[in-house]
Amino acid sequence: MGTTAGEPPAVHPAVLFIRRPGAPFSNAMHQRFRVLDSVASGEPLAAFLAAAAAKPDPPRAAVIMGGGVVRADASFLDAVLSIRCLVSTAAGVDHIDLAECARRGVAVANSGTVYSADVADHAVGMLVDVIRRVSAAERFVRRGLWPVQGDYALGSTLRGKRVGIIGLGNIGSLIAKRLEAFGCVIHYNSRGPKDSVAYKYFPDVHDLASESEVLVVACALNKETRHVVSKDVLEALGTDGIVINIGRGASIDEAELVIALKEGRIAGAGLDVFENEPAVPSDLLSMDNVVLTPHSAVFTLESRSDLCEHLICNLEAFFSGKPLLTPVLP
Amino acid sequence: MGTTAGEPPAVHPAVLFIRRPGAPFSNAMHQRFRVLDSVASGEPLAAFLAAAAAKPDPPRAAVIMGGGVVRADASFLDAVLSIRCLVSTAAGVDHIDLAECARRGVAVANSGTVYSADVADHAVGMLVDVIRRVSAAERFVRRGLWPVQGDYALGSTLRGKRVGIIGLGNIGSLIAKRLEAFGCVIHYNSRGPKDSVAYKYFPDVHDLASESEVLVVACALNKETRHVVSKDVLEALGTDGIVINIGRGASIDEAELVIALKEGRIAGAGLDVFENEPAVPSDLLSMDNVVLTPHSAVFTLESRSDLCEHLICNLEAFFSGKPLLTPVLP
Repeated sequence: MGTTAGEPPAVHPAVLFIRRPGAPFSNAMHQRFRVLDSVASGEPLAAFLAAAAAKPDPPRAAVIMGGGVVRADASFLDAVLSIRCLVSTAAGVDHIDLAECARRGVAVANSGTVYSADVADHAVGMLVDVIRRVSAAERFVRRGLWPVQGDYALGSTLRGKRVGIIGLGNIGSLIAKRLEAFGCVIHYNSRGPKDSVAYKYFPDVHDLASESEVLVVACALNKETRHVVSKDVLEALGTDGIVINIGRGASIDEAELVIALKEGRIAGAGLDVFENEPAVPSDLLSMDNVVLTPHSAVFTLESRSDLCEHLICNLEAFFSGKPLLTPVLP
Repeated sequence: MGTTAGEPPAVHPAVLFIRRPGAPFSNAMHQRFRVLDSVASGEPLAAFLAAAAAKPDPPRAAVIMGGGVVRADASFLDAVLSIRCLVSTAAGVDHIDLAECARRGVAVANSGTVYSADVADHAVGMLVDVIRRVSAAERFVRRGLWPVQGDYALGSTLRGKRVGIIGLGNIGSLIAKRLEAFGCVIHYNSRGPKDSVAYKYFPDVHDLASESEVLVVACALNKETRHVVSKDVLEALGTDGIVINIGRGASIDEAELVIALKEGRIAGAGLDVFENEPAVPSDLLSMDNVVLTPHSAVFTLESRSDLCEHLICNLEAFFSGKPLLTPVLP
């Protein structure tokens, strides 16, 4: 990486950078690539892409930020036909049309395991928070109610709780490892059973929910997992059940979740992701049995730095004709 | 326990029950003992104790609730000279004058390990909360700021963090076990090194703080540990340091902690206990880098039930002349 002293500086390859306003990473990128930055351009997306495509050396790679700001689909790829590689800043690639990329032979990489430990930590933190009512007790203290009203309402213990994890990939496995240390009993649903773990496998999410007191959504969002936590699954989880979602908002039927919470048909929820984020259903904002974070499970100072390095390595691999570090489509 | 069918019912022994208003446990106690309940009596403590002492069969045992409502000291023991056994509802017995009890031959039992796992869970939950800014991000979401201001400020990761635990007893050990699963590096201070663990031992709390990014207070409160987290220790912990306290408020010099937080000389704190609870220093109530819970680390539905059984077993052991289950003074 970089230029050896004495060699003439390499011409930096052009890279499209599709990000949200205020999102980081561009500085380090600028040191390695000629960055065509969607936000810095100040142009609407269509005009920005047209200008990029019209350059004498149009970009062959694009970094696409997760979070739904731009969907890399057929019309996106049509707009800049030079693009042969997409690198997602997220582990999930639901914002990239993989079928279309495969058809065109466009390589796709994701963020690999850069975020996994932080997301697992956040998931477990949210579960402790919901079940032990930490944020709710926090509000009670900050409002000055402790001296007035005395003890705060009891939560439940974690030990012995049956936790059903939907999606036992890298993140799900790290959540399981942490929750084992709390004495939880781990069950899981995944595309298939994993030989590497002794946890009980449930081929059906409904059955998993029936056997669980906590349901953790840690799967990728795709056709099969959209609204996988349905009204029926919430019903199966039951009135003492808690839902944690650190995957994607649309893996839960959010409208049904809100109704179940309002009607006390489940006990609580910890949600880092939402179907139409940053919009959060207003009914949730006044509930004491939910913990709501702004898609921040992935964000730490350390993961930001790791991601930056990871993005650059994937792009450098692509430009030097080497295999991507974390290919979703090679 | 209980009466065998056919035998005449045993006369239930009298037990003093010193509790806070609204505190639970009395129902199950009533089934086994003639409970003299400080709250139900409606009398001031002195009158209540005098009335108990004047009974034809005065109580030989007392249950003393933790939380500082009554201190079982020489004047307390003088008021009801029949008392030969004190059972604390807490693991800590800083509300019981042990030297005075020892001098008089009054047996003392605590709550043993009934709460340990729940307290450890809460400590870890608070640490995740502080370091990942969960409660603060929660407020950001509930105030509707996410769509307006975008990404919330980054927290730090847990993995690799050096955590110094003050007091590696039952609770401290369970905290360590959980944090190992998060990839933290555990150091500790205790009365002496423990052969059973491989964590690095620091005989001095100041040195422990110097080598730690997180300091967890999990020790008993006594003369040696009062204000063990002093101004100097906070200084040694440093500007990136986080303090978690699930022990007793007075183990930290609270006034110095507030100053250190205000001046940014430490990064944050998660506090379940306070020097003058339920009073919480008002400066803390507006800080976003602290998490404040109302001495609720011990409280779960399950621990309440376990405690009740544990109290009854200790009392029945005492009344039948058997060894206490969890003696502090035998």
